[in-house]
Amino acid sequence: MTTKIALVGVGKIARDQHVPALSASPDFELVATASLEGAVEGVPGFQSLDALFAAHPEVTAVSICIPPVPRFEVAAQALRSGRHVMLEKPPGASVSECRELEAMAKQADLSIYATWHSREAAQVANARAWLRNKRLTSLTITWKEDVRRWHPGQTWIWKSGGLGVFDPGINALSILTEILPVPVHMRAATLFVPENCDTPIAADLTFAHPDGAAVSADFDFRQEGEQTWSMDIRTTEGDLVLSDGGARLAIDGETLASDAVLHETADEGGEDKAPLGGEYHRLYANFARLLASGETDMDLSPLLHVADAFMLGRRVSVEPFIE
Amino acid sequence: MTTKIALVGVGKIARDQHVPALSASPDFELVATASLEGAVEGVPGFQSLDALFAAHPEVTAVSICIPPVPRFEVAAQALRSGRHVMLEKPPGASVSECRELEAMAKQADLSIYATWHSREAAQVANARAWLRNKRLTSLTITWKEDVRRWHPGQTWIWKSGGLGVFDPGINALSILTEILPVPVHMRAATLFVPENCDTPIAADLTFAHPDGAAVSADFDFRQEGEQTWSMDIRTTEGDLVLSDGGARLAIDGETLASDAVLHETADEGGEDKAPLGGEYHRLYANFARLLASGETDMDLSPLLHVADAFMLGRRVSVEPFIE
Repeated sequence: MTTKIALVGVGKIARDQHVPALSASPDFELVATASLEGAVEGVPGFQSLDALFAAHPEVTAVSICIPPVPRFEVAAQALRSGRHVMLEKPPGASVSECRELEAMAKQADLSIYATWHSREAAQVANARAWLRNKRLTSLTITWKEDVRRWHPGQTWIWKSGGLGVFDPGINALSILTEILPVPVHMRAATLFVPENCDTPIAADLTFAHPDGAAVSADFDFRQEGEQTWSMDIRTTEGDLVLSDGGARLAIDGETLASDAVLHETADEGGEDKAPLGGEYHRLYANFARLLASGETDMDLSPLLHVADAFMLGRRVSVEPFIE
Repeated sequence: MTTKIALVGVGKIARDQHVPALSASPDFELVATASLEGAVEGVPGFQSLDALFAAHPEVTAVSICIPPVPRFEVAAQALRSGRHVMLEKPPGASVSECRELEAMAKQADLSIYATWHSREAAQVANARAWLRNKRLTSLTITWKEDVRRWHPGQTWIWKSGGLGVFDPGINALSILTEILPVPVHMRAATLFVPENCDTPIAADLTFAHPDGAAVSADFDFRQEGEQTWSMDIRTTEGDLVLSDGGARLAIDGETLASDAVLHETADEGGEDKAPLGGEYHRLYANFARLLASGETDMDLSPLLHVADAFMLGRRVSVEPFIE
C-alpha cells in the first residue's frame, strides 16, 4: 500500500531530485504539491498547505523542500494537521525549532525525518564500515564548488539563515558525522563573508577529535573549473579517499568497484542499500521504513556543527559577491 | 560528609561567587585550585589539573570557571580522571562539545552539571509558578549593562567564542527557558558587532512562540547609568515584571515580598529554595543533590538559542569598542 504524499516547495531540488525519486518509489504516490511559484506537470498544485489538505484529505505525509527560514511554520502546520513530515536538509533555520518539531511529532505520535541526502551517497556506508576499527590520524574535507553553477538565483542562500557555503558544506558534515565512530566538535572556524552578503562564501573549520587526529574542512563557493567534494582520510592502517560527494571511494589508491559492499548488510536492517537507486531514492525508502515502524529520525548533529561554526567562528570580510 | 572539590580558573567570577559560596557550603570543602594566574588565599594552588590531582587525589569533584573556549579540555580531563564536573555558564564554546561531555560523563557514571546561575535568582521559581497556567501575550527582555563596569579587562569576551553581549544575555535566556511552560525558538536576530571585535556588543532577538505571543530580547553592553536586567511579561490574566536579574518580582504593579513563595515547595523536592543564600549557594546545593542521586543536569537550551542567534542573525557593523 502506497503512502499518499504531498510535496511543499517546487524549486530546484524538488524538480531535480524529489519528483523523480517519488515517481520511481514503490512506497509513495505524489498526490499534490503546495508551492508559491513552481508546479509539477500532471500533479494538482496549491498555493497553501491548508488548501491542499482541504482538497486532498487522503494525504498522510508531507515532504518539505522550501528554504530553511520558512520551513518551521509549514512543518508545524503539517504536524498539527496529523501528517508525517520529511524535511530536506537542513531541517530548519535554527536548532531549537528542530527540537520543537521533534517534540511535536512525538506528542502527536507522528514520524518526522530530518534527511541528509549525502549520507545516502553510494560509498558512505562503505567508508563508515572501513573506518569502524581504524585509528584515525587525519581527515581533511575539501568541499569546493561554483555557487553560480549549482545555485543560480538562489538569493535566500546569501540572506541571514540561508547558511551560505554551509548549505553544501552541511552535506560534508552529515557524512563526517555518519562515518566517524566517535564524535568531534568545532575547535576553530574562520568564515569568509562577502561585504554585500549576510552569510559566508567560504569557511575553514578545525575540529577536535578525541584521539587527537587532525580533522579539518575547507568549504568554498568560489571554485571555478574542477569541482571538489572529497574527504582525504588517513589512518594507522591505510588511507581512504571519499570523493564525488560520497559516490566514489578509494582505499590506498585503489578505487572500489561501485557495487562493492564493505559493510555488513545485516547491520543495516537486512537490506543492501548501496546498489539501489540514488540518494533521494534511498531517503524515501528510509522514510517509508520510519512510517512503517512508527519511528522518528531527527539527527541534528550536522546542523549543530554549523551553528557552532557561526557561534565561535571568526569572520573575515571579503569582496562583494556578484551573481 | 562533605565532597572534596577543586576550583579551576581563579578569575573574577570565582573570587566574587564560587569561593564565598563554597566557604558557606555544608556540602563541599574547597581543597585546591588550578589556575594559570589567580589563587585563593589559604588554599593550595596549582598550575595544572594534573599537578592538582597528583597532590590531592582525594578531590572527587571539579568546578570549572575558566572562559568557554579552553573549558572542554579541562572538563574532559576531569572526567577522564574520574571526577564529577560542575560547569560555570556557558557550559562550553560549542554545543557539540557539551554533548560530548555529557556522553563522556554518562559512560563513566559521573555527574555533570551545566549551571545557569540566573535560574537560581530569588524570584525565578515564583515567576515560573505564576506563568504556569497563564496565557502569554508578550514577553520583552531588556538586558542592558555597562561592559566596562562589569567585565573590566575580560578581553576573551570580544574574541571568537567569547559570545560578547551574549555572555550576560545567556543569563536572560536561561531564565526565559526556565519560566516559560512552552518552548520558543529564534525567528530573527540582529547582532551589532564593533569593527574591532569578533563578537556582538548588542543584539535584538525575536522569538516564535507557539501561541503567537510577542517574545523579544534587547541585549546591550553599552548601557551607562542605570543598569537593567528585566523581563516585562504580559498575559491575559495580568502582568508580571521580573527585574534585577530575577531577584525582584512585581505582579500587576505590586512588588512581591522577597520571602514570598508562589511555587509548590513539594515540586522542588521538598526544599524551599527561595530564601536560602544566593544564586551560587543554590548552584552548589543543586550539585550536591546531583552527586547524591548520581544524576546529571545538562540543559543546553540557553546555549542553543545563542548558537541559533549567531547562525541566523544578521550582522551590523558598529563603531569600534575601546575599553
